[in-house]
Amino acid sequence: MPTATVILPAAGRGQRFTDAARREVAEPPATKVFADLAGRPVLAHTLDAFLAVEAVVELLVPVPADAVVWARDTFAGAAPGRRLVFLAGGEQRTDSVARALDQSEGKTELVVIHDAVRPLVRRSVIEEALRQALDHGAAVVGRPVDHTLKRVADGRTVAGTVSREHLWLAQTPQAFRREVISRAYSQLGRLVGKVTDDAQLVEAVGGRVVMVEGDPANLKITTAEDLRVCEALLAGGWPFDETS
Amino acid sequence: MPTATVILPAAGRGQRFTDAARREVAEPPATKVFADLAGRPVLAHTLDAFLAVEAVVELLVPVPADAVVWARDTFAGAAPGRRLVFLAGGEQRTDSVARALDQSEGKTELVVIHDAVRPLVRRSVIEEALRQALDHGAAVVGRPVDHTLKRVADGRTVAGTVSREHLWLAQTPQAFRREVISRAYSQLGRLVGKVTDDAQLVEAVGGRVVMVEGDPANLKITTAEDLRVCEALLAGGWPFDETS
Repeated sequence: MPTATVILPAAGRGQRFTDAARREVAEPPATKVFADLAGRPVLAHTLDAFLAVEAVVELLVPVPADAVVWARDTFAGAAPGRRLVFLAGGEQRTDSVARALDQSEGKTELVVIHDAVRPLVRRSVIEEALRQALDHGAAVVGRPVDHTLKRVADGRTVAGTVSREHLWLAQTPQAFRREVISRAYSQLGRLVGKVTDDAQLVEAVGGRVVMVEGDPANLKITTAEDLRVCEALLAGGWPFDETS
Repeated sequence: MPTATVILPAAGRGQRFTDAARREVAEPPATKVFADLAGRPVLAHTLDAFLAVEAVVELLVPVPADAVVWARDTFAGAAPGRRLVFLAGGEQRTDSVARALDQSEGKTELVVIHDAVRPLVRRSVIEEALRQALDHGAAVVGRPVDHTLKRVADGRTVAGTVSREHLWLAQTPQAFRREVISRAYSQLGRLVGKVTDDAQLVEAVGGRVVMVEGDPANLKITTAEDLRVCEALLAGGWPFDETS
């Protein structure tokens, strides 16, 4: 397996996340990625998942500008033998990823981007995403839509049922050959409309993207309740039967 | 609040659910709705959620034909003061609901239909669905789509990103004024194409349906892992801060 750089965007402030969910950590910036999850910051769990993947040699973490010093101190020594860099993120998620790409040493063949607030990501899923990116250029972890989809008008009146056939919900990680994601990001300024994930940039420049099936527990922590759910899953033995 | 009948379709065999997930229950039929969850059948948890709602006076549970006797014995006395009926379900989910509607005493103003394999449904969510159904005729619990949606060709190559604006994922419960769901089901034979939820039948006959926001933990147990997740959530104190 070729080597990989990991980018963990962690600069979001998460308006839905209140201070009430935070615990007694020594003064972490008030952002969900540093909230306490089973005794450690959420980010520590996410880092662990990627550090368990041998191909990973470089990890870049865009955080809020006022959190860079704290993060460097807190996570000093967390990634022995790997390059771990905290940098100031940008206004938008794409700005943060672009800055991280700029700060990469550029020695790896693969780049994997993952929401730092998705701590429950399985090693096997990360590895499969890397393999598929190597073969096809770009790979997105997600799940087939297995619920009925409703189109809503005026905020809550159902205007119709939408076919879910061939539809997937994209999560992260999203993995790329370095040249594929670099080319896509170089075109960022030309894109019109809202970009909600990195693979969309690759699609916009005509690159091939394949889906990789992830699992439902790979949830994004956006509320205090999400944090409780993650804690319960960890206490309950997640990742269950994965041997690693 | 007017009174309500609950229909809990539980006749599905769940091909993805293996016997490995079952525990030492005295010979329950091999179906996920009777699998052990924290020491009791999944269905026992689901029943409890609805029994906590005062408006509920009748509960109808379509199960596999060979499980009717076992279910009656096992759940005898489970719903004191309410009418609890187990009946043989049909081939399709809609067949099961139609049979349950036929067996209802018909005295209630509201009918709420809920997947029996969604045991972690909050009382407050059920009650809100009933209130909205009373006001608008039909109400579906669901969640706004908060992930990027990908359209996939050939099984896994991304053909494009789909706007998630105004899209919701429908779960259950789905609640209805009795005359609304009865009229919709009376038209069942005329509908062409696959029906994936009950509200779709109401939409097909021109009825108004509104969405009610549920929560992410209201998951449908379709795999052994889903069961582990539910167990972890219960052990971790789900429903967390709901006072009931």
